[in-house]
Amino acid sequence: MPAQLLTGTPVVEELYTRIRSALQNLSPHTPYPTLAVLIPGDPSAQAYARAIRKHFSNLCLQVREFMLDDQMEEFDFLQLIKQLDSDTSVTGILALQPLPPRISKSTLSLAMPPTKDVDGVSYEQQGRLALGTPGVVPSTPLGGILLLQHYGITVAGRHAVVIGRSPVVGRPLTLLLLTADATVTICHSRTPDLAHLTRQADLLFTAAGRPGLVIPDMVKPGAVVVDFGVTVVGQRLVGDVDPAVAEVASALTPVPGGTGPVTTAVLACNLLRLARLWPEELFSKTKHRYIT
Amino acid sequence: MPAQLLTGTPVVEELYTRIRSALQNLSPHTPYPTLAVLIPGDPSAQAYARAIRKHFSNLCLQVREFMLDDQMEEFDFLQLIKQLDSDTSVTGILALQPLPPRISKSTLSLAMPPTKDVDGVSYEQQGRLALGTPGVVPSTPLGGILLLQHYGITVAGRHAVVIGRSPVVGRPLTLLLLTADATVTICHSRTPDLAHLTRQADLLFTAAGRPGLVIPDMVKPGAVVVDFGVTVVGQRLVGDVDPAVAEVASALTPVPGGTGPVTTAVLACNLLRLARLWPEELFSKTKHRYIT
Repeated sequence: MPAQLLTGTPVVEELYTRIRSALQNLSPHTPYPTLAVLIPGDPSAQAYARAIRKHFSNLCLQVREFMLDDQMEEFDFLQLIKQLDSDTSVTGILALQPLPPRISKSTLSLAMPPTKDVDGVSYEQQGRLALGTPGVVPSTPLGGILLLQHYGITVAGRHAVVIGRSPVVGRPLTLLLLTADATVTICHSRTPDLAHLTRQADLLFTAAGRPGLVIPDMVKPGAVVVDFGVTVVGQRLVGDVDPAVAEVASALTPVPGGTGPVTTAVLACNLLRLARLWPEELFSKTKHRYIT
Repeated sequence: MPAQLLTGTPVVEELYTRIRSALQNLSPHTPYPTLAVLIPGDPSAQAYARAIRKHFSNLCLQVREFMLDDQMEEFDFLQLIKQLDSDTSVTGILALQPLPPRISKSTLSLAMPPTKDVDGVSYEQQGRLALGTPGVVPSTPLGGILLLQHYGITVAGRHAVVIGRSPVVGRPLTLLLLTADATVTICHSRTPDLAHLTRQADLLFTAAGRPGLVIPDMVKPGAVVVDFGVTVVGQRLVGDVDPAVAEVASALTPVPGGTGPVTTAVLACNLLRLARLWPEELFSKTKHRYIT
């Protein structure tokens, strides 16, 4: 029997319902959820910015866009962040990657104010995650966990194998899975026998950006496979997982249409959370089921 | 053939030599390395404070001690940290665990100034570690890595299994091993079949605080076993590893006398680093070999 397709759409719809309900609690004393998006010249960053604009507009969330010139100096970047931090009408800040060449990732992590850090890139939010007490978590890995939660797939007590150790997906995902009581193995380009490890996974996560990396022989029959890989091949978006894995896995996220759309919805949840509009009990329930 | 004993003493001696050499670079313009130690009433914290005093005194490093009352309020703790932060004659701050009941760990991580954070407990230093660009790293896990380095044991490309996910050892060790190019599996109390995973370890690290947890059957022949477990049994300190493991492992850290003494020496290295007295090339060499 081919694997169940874990599509993102119903997860996004569930999150949107919760977001719309949370927005009912807006009062004149609450700042309106407003995201400042810092957009570099890179075409994929600009495409992501368009997707954010579209989805946030559907949710009546405000977006303000700031274009970052490739020649931007660190001083000007820091000034912009400082200005957005002191602007009380801005409740969240997102700096899309790749940053202009003169702005390092550590500059971003140091400068991003944790109280407006909608994608958990600041050292403080990363530190909370590292210590097992996550605050605002990067949207892509959190989206993967919420997707499993939506489909009723248990994380606690299971062996999760993560392929890829990027600071955007693999590393925070590992920390999140650990906090959710999974036993976690993290593999990467220096792992000698990848298949030997992936075949042990109850839950297999891949974020390597290498199309066709995960073939059926690398997957335990009945495993759940979550694909964060996104590579442009010709005109198509392709994940890391060979489609034939659907014959072995019990469940599989498609690319496109799997983890990707959930990421943007989680950004919106994080924005509401920073604006103190996310009902504590809703989030606690999530935390209780998956993130404690 | 019984396992090689990886004792801490020669590692400590090597680090002390490097520390003494670094102290030669002291100038009137460099602040003298001075550690403020915050000591709660707990007897094991007080014993650790005595060990620090003794070893730092041997190295001519200054120590100032501040006793923390069990009734201490958060406000007073924050005031003390603030005062030590603004005191230019203090170059490092260490708050021993367990903290007084009214001081949470998140208060400590938030309040600890990263530039004086000698044990890497601040969110900023934890965040740097999480993102794969470690700055000042918690002394116990870094000591374990330096111990392996001293004995010429390779980390990169090997499968490391970590037992325990505490914020003090298991979690930062996992992140450090990952940065050192190991493939890492992290196990804990919710791991269903611990032995199945530990038997796959080239490098097995245990920090569970459960005497006798690791028995020979759980260890791959020839594996290297690093024991961070410390439990007081009667009058003795006992690790997590059954002594019979020495018949299976190729190398093993003893308890006491293994990872423990290295921890205090690493604290001293971290203190010098914060005082900008640790020669960059020495540390970079370490980083190049093990922490990049």
